Amino acid sequence: MIPINMADDSHVPTPPEMAALLAELSTEAEADYYGQGGAVAAFEEQVAEFLGKERAVMFPTGTLGNQLTLQRLSGGSPARIVVHRQSHLFNDAGDNLSQLSGLTMVPLEGRGAGYSAAQLKAEIERTRSARVASRIGAVAVETPSRRVSGRRFGSELPGVIEVAKAEGIPLFLDGARMLIECAWADVTPREMAAPFDAVYLSLYKYLKAPFGCVIAGPGELFEGIHHHRRRFGGSLYQMWPAAVIASNALPRQAETWREARRVGEACILALKERDRIPNVYPDGTNVLTFNCMASPEKLNALEEKFGLKFLPPSSGQLSLKINETWIGHDPNQIADRLIAVLDEAQIC
Amino acid sequence: MIPINMADDSHVPTPPEMAALLAELSTEAEADYYGQGGAVAAFEEQVAEFLGKERAVMFPTGTLGNQLTLQRLSGGSPARIVVHRQSHLFNDAGDNLSQLSGLTMVPLEGRGAGYSAAQLKAEIERTRSARVASRIGAVAVETPSRRVSGRRFGSELPGVIEVAKAEGIPLFLDGARMLIECAWADVTPREMAAPFDAVYLSLYKYLKAPFGCVIAGPGELFEGIHHHRRRFGGSLYQMWPAAVIASNALPRQAETWREARRVGEACILALKERDRIPNVYPDGTNVLTFNCMASPEKLNALEEKFGLKFLPPSSGQLSLKINETWIGHDPNQIADRLIAVLDEAQIC
Amino acid sequence: MIPINMADDSHVPTPPEMAALLAELSTEAEADYYGQGGAVAAFEEQVAEFLGKERAVMFPTGTLGNQLTLQRLSGGSPARIVVHRQSHLFNDAGDNLSQLSGLTMVPLEGRGAGYSAAQLKAEIERTRSARVASRIGAVAVETPSRRVSGRRFGSELPGVIEVAKAEGIPLFLDGARMLIECAWADVTPREMAAPFDAVYLSLYKYLKAPFGCVIAGPGELFEGIHHHRRRFGGSLYQMWPAAVIASNALPRQAETWREARRVGEACILALKERDRIPNVYPDGTNVLTFNCMASPEKLNALEEKFGLKFLPPSSGQLSLKINETWIGHDPNQIADRLIAVLDEAQIC
Amino acid sequence: MIPINMADDSHVPTPPEMAALLAELSTEAEADYYGQGGAVAAFEEQVAEFLGKERAVMFPTGTLGNQLTLQRLSGGSPARIVVHRQSHLFNDAGDNLSQLSGLTMVPLEGRGAGYSAAQLKAEIERTRSARVASRIGAVAVETPSRRVSGRRFGSELPGVIEVAKAEGIPLFLDGARMLIECAWADVTPREMAAPFDAVYLSLYKYLKAPFGCVIAGPGELFEGIHHHRRRFGGSLYQMWPAAVIASNALPRQAETWREARRVGEACILALKERDRIPNVYPDGTNVLTFNCMASPEKLNALEEKFGLKFLPPSSGQLSLKINETWIGHDPNQIADRLIAVLDEAQIC
Repeated sequence: MIPINMADDSHVPTPPEMAALLAELSTEAEADYYGQGGAVAAFEEQVAEFLGKERAVMFPTGTLGNQLTLQRLSGGSPARIVVHRQSHLFNDAGDNLSQLSGLTMVPLEGRGAGYSAAQLKAEIERTRSARVASRIGAVAVETPSRRVSGRRFGSELPGVIEVAKAEGIPLFLDGARMLIECAWADVTPREMAAPFDAVYLSLYKYLKAPFGCVIAGPGELFEGIHHHRRRFGGSLYQMWPAAVIASNALPRQAETWREARRVGEACILALKERDRIPNVYPDGTNVLTFNCMASPEKLNALEEKFGLKFLPPSSGQLSLKINETWIGHDPNQIADRLIAVLDEAQIC
Repeated sequence: MIPINMADDSHVPTPPEMAALLAELSTEAEADYYGQGGAVAAFEEQVAEFLGKERAVMFPTGTLGNQLTLQRLSGGSPARIVVHRQSHLFNDAGDNLSQLSGLTMVPLEGRGAGYSAAQLKAEIERTRSARVASRIGAVAVETPSRRVSGRRFGSELPGVIEVAKAEGIPLFLDGARMLIECAWADVTPREMAAPFDAVYLSLYKYLKAPFGCVIAGPGELFEGIHHHRRRFGGSLYQMWPAAVIASNALPRQAETWREARRVGEACILALKERDRIPNVYPDGTNVLTFNCMASPEKLNALEEKFGLKFLPPSSGQLSLKINETWIGHDPNQIADRLIAVLDEAQIC
Repeated sequence: MIPINMADDSHVPTPPEMAALLAELSTEAEADYYGQGGAVAAFEEQVAEFLGKERAVMFPTGTLGNQLTLQRLSGGSPARIVVHRQSHLFNDAGDNLSQLSGLTMVPLEGRGAGYSAAQLKAEIERTRSARVASRIGAVAVETPSRRVSGRRFGSELPGVIEVAKAEGIPLFLDGARMLIECAWADVTPREMAAPFDAVYLSLYKYLKAPFGCVIAGPGELFEGIHHHRRRFGGSLYQMWPAAVIASNALPRQAETWREARRVGEACILALKERDRIPNVYPDGTNVLTFNCMASPEKLNALEEKFGLKFLPPSSGQLSLKINETWIGHDPNQIADRLIAVLDEAQIC
Repeated sequence: MIPINMADDSHVPTPPEMAALLAELSTEAEADYYGQGGAVAAFEEQVAEFLGKERAVMFPTGTLGNQLTLQRLSGGSPARIVVHRQSHLFNDAGDNLSQLSGLTMVPLEGRGAGYSAAQLKAEIERTRSARVASRIGAVAVETPSRRVSGRRFGSELPGVIEVAKAEGIPLFLDGARMLIECAWADVTPREMAAPFDAVYLSLYKYLKAPFGCVIAGPGELFEGIHHHRRRFGGSLYQMWPAAVIASNALPRQAETWREARRVGEACILALKERDRIPNVYPDGTNVLTFNCMASPEKLNALEEKFGLKFLPPSSGQLSLKINETWIGHDPNQIADRLIAVLDEAQIC
């Protein structure tokens, strides 16, 4: 039984697989020097072109890339960054915007992964009323959002973009998983990136690199950025291995996710036909969930038995991720394997 | 016509009045040395006793005192401080908790000046779920709250205190105007301060000092704090003038505010009897408001004519503050003067 | 016996004296509002004119004023500030340039209170050779220097100024005690301030204010500075008392220090004639020292007996400060009192 | 003619070489997860054992590892870190200790790469005399030192260590190239690391990894450090490729450097015998220098012609590094090739 990974956004290469990949891709690769030149520069150009931006810069982690980009976009401390209360920036970056950059996050929360233009306007107004001058330096949008079951920012986005542009506030897209949204929203990466001043793309969530992130935006945003990247400890001596792997994976993403979505949706249909109805959000992407009270131990045993890989259930939810590992399987058979798990684990 | 100041929380002494006050109070005063010893130390002891805390420390501004106290209470960056979205800390301190202390504010918003125990719990839960360890270092309560028409935190407070204590999270009271709340809530300053680990009291809003704040709390919280105060530029060579004036005003506050409240409530009654019904919140304190579309120029002229001092209207609201300057006036006559203004300014 | 204060740079007013001064000066004073307008604005204009700069801004402490000014002058973190290894900035400000402003001090040490143009050049060169871009954002000069027995920066200053100007690096004068140097170096405050982009003057060391500092420089340096001052907790509700006192003392400084110097030098001559030769630096100002092994207790007793006030001896040195309290005394009689102390304390 | 790399501390693997190495080493490697577990954990244990410390932690860059370690060792801001004025920390890390950690560097400069116990004592004394409490939180030693021609800290080291230990100040070894010093000073890595609380070793300068650093020290120093590493953006999704390569190279270092030194010294002898006397410091390691006025273009041409790789001359010095690429060559023939270059480039 060929295993299907429902825990991640793609198959995670094993060390031998990654070494094999590198062996294949390194023959024509040129090494970078502290993240400058060589395969890294080539990859940065590829991404800039791919997202329709003037320039792109690679960082070892999104945590670092996002931070340095928001420093620059916002003009630096003191400034406020509007974020979603459920966003990665507000919850999973160790509060580094405050600690290391002196920036103030302003969390908003609306329906799902979005917030409204009205909420944004209200924050702009309150900031204007501050006794000590304050300003909103950037508006961050995360879509799709990991903490909100892969849901998209959704229908409020055009309004939010309009307000930000009218106020001259730069827009940042935390698009770690944006290529997934492209498949579900039927847009191209360039279309999705267009309204944003800067866009973040993760290199390891589904592009197979061992690490890394790339930020695309206007050239002047990144003026001298490699000094600042180095100051923060983010200029690895060589990053070319991550660059060549992600570079290789990038062109296949549109096709991969389109096909994964097709298989996933057929599987959801098959589940529904058998009355095992998963939670699927209309503004969702590659995630479906089931209410689940099963113990992690029980689930572990079932993962092995049925060749599936799950995330441990959280808040009573079992979340399943559609990805490239679903491709090539008969949707009905995936449904069969899932229903077998649901039955044995008494999940409904 | 003796003027009544409805713009501030007390009469603001003119320079000659303040000099006269100092002349009277300086005869037995001993100078401090960079904020240590002398009249400053004596005043700090007086406040500690007054609020039932082990120690109190004077700072030149609440902006500084609050910041250094929250650094200490929270254990320092990285830590999160729960605040109200309409609070002074979140809106009027220039985002200095982020910029200068690397702390992350988490704004909550409930009814009026409060937020709920459930909201606090949810934040604690989300913080626990962070990918990079994060923690809530302090819970801040501002009551009464300037930005919310002097309203009190209210009935949610015991629940919030209970959650914070159960979680071992220190509680901070931004009690700049707490002595006003004492009169309206019929509690003593010690009772109001009791549940909080540290309490901030302003020295110039109604204690007549030219500047200053004092923070009361456990002795260990302030260990070596004068070095840190100096590092931040807050150790004035001499602060005794502010200390002696506030020290002199402190013992009279309970009586003053009780009487001001009596006059104010009688005046509100008189207004209502004549069908000029102000907005008064059940959880409010010394503020009443009228909807008001009058121009500032128009109001300025009326201030002079009727011996009243107003804050400029904001968001279509004219806010009036009850304070010591109301004392000694016939409530009906205050109502007369107000109604005359309302009539001439076509305020309803 | 009229007491002479040899511990400070002037007589320190007692609380009643300060209250009396305020009573006299407050009749025409207008209150400031959080450090803006009124007597504070008037004093700032007076100082700007006095030092020949476009604008001056008052701060509650030099610690704060220096920090915010160096942030602005240097363009902000990351930047390096060249300082003297014995300077106040490097030793007595709690390392706040690093902690609160992210600036890097580069300490130099030459003869006395100065360093050389060659040393400055070497630092500029090394900074240029940095692997991660670095830059010197400001050159700070402290003269006269408290930690170096009131000595002046001296003959190296023109060379240092020339190098800084050639490199386009802003120059900062820590001139807390600059009006003393003016008397000893026979220059006007404007002449002394001229080569520097920004100049700091203390308000309490000899201008009698209870606290405060003023920084003078170009107008654009201070654009919106009152917001930043407030963010740091430095915008006291009212600073007019300090402003009016310092304003009153400023015009008399040139005459006062000239006369104090005259008396002091006559006294030094009288001491020498009696073979009690103090250490006096050719590049010194108002400080003379004696080697001294006497115990603080012994000295305390002698202070009372002879009507003198001393600083506690430090590193085997008794430092005596010439100031206004010497004026009106017969230099020979001051010498007599000093020699009596030296004899009884067995100081040579 | 087999090329010799005199520009680096070892041969730098080409991409295909590195891929081949990975292919060989990945078969038994287990992936880490954001720098935890798997091959990274195994490598950390190996280094801890190798340096005789309780624990070791891997970081993507020395810039990051050093910073987080000095934060912890020093107890955090505000604290002072004693460094050498020519050190990497003071010159080549973008002033990040000030900007990101609020730490204050105190640069000392003695003979070569060292400074003296007396200098350290003087700094401790001055820090004690600070008006605002200050403290030296760590003493950093870089040896051998890149900016000082690979010279060792030298004979002053025991005295510096003694003073630091007597004062209870933690000692930090910037030992990026410490394994080179081990060969030249005839000590084991454990002996060299012993007096230091924490020791930094670079993974790419001669251990062949594409990036990385490892810090060894007491277990408690690193408590929860992976959260802090992630906050700073230093927790790559996978670091196992760097770990397995460095792990593989580590055990061969002692033998490699011993042999490289033997060949290098024989070559120096050969040069001297032919009256081409390089600058070699008695406290040096693997670097020899010639005064050199040749143009980079001229040298480039000679590099190709004679199969040598040089660093571009700097400050009129051509620096040559002895390393593994010298091994296996006849020292006399290396001398021949060098003399040919010197002759053609008119270097003396």
